[in-house]
Amino acid sequence: MKIAIFPGDGIGPEVTAQARRVLDALDLPGLTLFEGDVGAVAYRRHGHPLPAETLEMARAADAVLFGAVGDFSCDDLPRELRPEQAILGLRSELGLFANLRPAAGFPGLEHLSSLKPDIARSIDLLVVRELNGDVYFGDKGERDSTGGREGWDAMSYNEAEVRRIAHVAFRAAMGRGKRLTSVDKANVLETSRIWRETVIEMAKDYPEVELDHMYVDNAAMQLVKSPGQFDTIVTGNLFGDILSDQASACVGSIGLLASASLGERQAEYGTFGLYEPIHGSAPDIAGQGKANPVAAVLSLAMLLRHSLGREEEAVGVERAVEGILADGVFGGDLGGSASTSEIGDAIVRKLL
Amino acid sequence: MKIAIFPGDGIGPEVTAQARRVLDALDLPGLTLFEGDVGAVAYRRHGHPLPAETLEMARAADAVLFGAVGDFSCDDLPRELRPEQAILGLRSELGLFANLRPAAGFPGLEHLSSLKPDIARSIDLLVVRELNGDVYFGDKGERDSTGGREGWDAMSYNEAEVRRIAHVAFRAAMGRGKRLTSVDKANVLETSRIWRETVIEMAKDYPEVELDHMYVDNAAMQLVKSPGQFDTIVTGNLFGDILSDQASACVGSIGLLASASLGERQAEYGTFGLYEPIHGSAPDIAGQGKANPVAAVLSLAMLLRHSLGREEEAVGVERAVEGILADGVFGGDLGGSASTSEIGDAIVRKLL
Ligand SMILES: CC(C)[C@H](C(=O)O)[C@@H](O)C(=O)O
Ligand SMILES: CC(C)[C@H](C(=O)O)[C@@H](O)C(=O)O
Repeated sequence: MKIAIFPGDGIGPEVTAQARRVLDALDLPGLTLFEGDVGAVAYRRHGHPLPAETLEMARAADAVLFGAVGDFSCDDLPRELRPEQAILGLRSELGLFANLRPAAGFPGLEHLSSLKPDIARSIDLLVVRELNGDVYFGDKGERDSTGGREGWDAMSYNEAEVRRIAHVAFRAAMGRGKRLTSVDKANVLETSRIWRETVIEMAKDYPEVELDHMYVDNAAMQLVKSPGQFDTIVTGNLFGDILSDQASACVGSIGLLASASLGERQAEYGTFGLYEPIHGSAPDIAGQGKANPVAAVLSLAMLLRHSLGREEEAVGVERAVEGILADGVFGGDLGGSASTSEIGDAIVRKLL
Repeated sequence: MKIAIFPGDGIGPEVTAQARRVLDALDLPGLTLFEGDVGAVAYRRHGHPLPAETLEMARAADAVLFGAVGDFSCDDLPRELRPEQAILGLRSELGLFANLRPAAGFPGLEHLSSLKPDIARSIDLLVVRELNGDVYFGDKGERDSTGGREGWDAMSYNEAEVRRIAHVAFRAAMGRGKRLTSVDKANVLETSRIWRETVIEMAKDYPEVELDHMYVDNAAMQLVKSPGQFDTIVTGNLFGDILSDQASACVGSIGLLASASLGERQAEYGTFGLYEPIHGSAPDIAGQGKANPVAAVLSLAMLLRHSLGREEEAVGVERAVEGILADGVFGGDLGGSASTSEIGDAIVRKLL
């Protein structure tokens, strides 16, 4: 089994290093690790945020552990050379179409949320975001118009694209509370009309799942008002970008939240995927030992589960994280004083 | 001066009736009122949610006071006959390009928010949403693709469209805290790149306004985490739909929130506009005297201010509303027991 590790920029290397230590501590047989450059560091070293060698490394791997990309040095680069192209490029080149973003509070840390504690405590949801289509990857450009320069982007979804992501979402809902909310804007968008019709079609294959539909504006409202009402949410790339970040903010501690981006390729023990903390590169605190490595470690747990078929080890890592949080081992972001490596130490100790 | 009143469906007629009583109580000279049908009721009576007579009435007026549209009877109608076409049609036919959505807590009602009271109390923002462009009004349709039926929608903004809404937003910011946050997704969308470049250009004309830019996913996060950081937000039609509803939910009492949709047409005393509560038609509680008329009354206040140039009366109405809320006169939605008409009575009494 091969894992490619792409630490990236800012706090990416620090938090990924701790996830790697946890992986080492698990001492899995037959595992090979590779490291590759992505983001601003890759641009500086190789002239591109997603160098061909990095992409090849990802293609050859069973899973990718990703840190974060982006720093201030790239603000003035043209879009195609900016660090976020690394993540967009990996998603499209590797066909990573299913983004899983769990958002759930950690017991005892509800006070970190800006929501009232009882409401924050009620959050336990999964956002399944489509990641290969929508207005992200449609044609786009600039043209002249009577109103001067005009920017345009084509939004679309076809039935096959919707079916593929809806299957993932229905199956995920089956493994959770068996309730699925499909979010769209079908009262305005044709893209959403096809989305909704296709999801409704597919519900027949999952009779145990209770399906409902919500307009995206209402979903944004409900996520603030009563986030506890949601079990699994499935939505397109653009709405998923917004709602999954909103859901994370409701939990209140983004240093704890992980994500998986799954592809179609099935390997021997699981599905090819890329795993990353949802926090970004936070260049302002990089290199100071202040970064919270928990989200990176929990991303590793998702990797173990989805790509390596190592459920037992995944649960072990998650339990270790719960353990150190219960012990009060956390950094400044959660009101504690532990450094990045101290948190890593504590997780590794719990594991053994 | 002519005001067209379109009560619409569900609780629309009840709340609009109270706003009308308040308007009557002001006894403004030279005012003529018209009533027209919109939404499901218009569809039933005239076969279309936005009948030609209604549109003509709006065109002839200085301002429109709008209730709400939509009820269960229309769920199976084709999109072009559904009630929301009334509001989309009015926006495009009347050139209502600037949607102003203030969101601020009412002192003493912070407990209604799902945010912690001190965070809810800090909210005092204005969302300026573009309302005539974006993916809402671009070409759209269904086509065949290798993946089956495909829904598509064209998103775009040109410089003239952005300039027009940005002027409104910069001016609004000048009258508030002089801080403007432009929200886009310029790291992915060409539409957003033109948006951002144009807003930056225009900032030169408003040197007193502090401008910053935020990606929409981050804005959704920040609106939960620390909504008090925002003064004025300007954004496109789609992002504005989502973020303005999210901001309203943060306040926690959508029965209190009003909105204005302004056009280009300047009348003698102000700008032509349409004014509506942000809550919908709530068909489940229609006709029971449970609806909160405050948002409709505050929409009237915005009408007095923006379309009739009656700042003094607008402030008078707003003070009256603050007064009854301070007196504890409110309905079940805010934890009180007053009926729709009792709330109207109380506001009228405060005014006199
Ligand atoms: C960096 C950006 C292009 C990306 C996205 O919009 O998908 C990010 O916000 C995310 O959610 O991973
Ligand atoms: C009803 C719908 C078409 C409308 C919109 O999306 O603009 C509504 O959500 C609004 O915000 O006024």
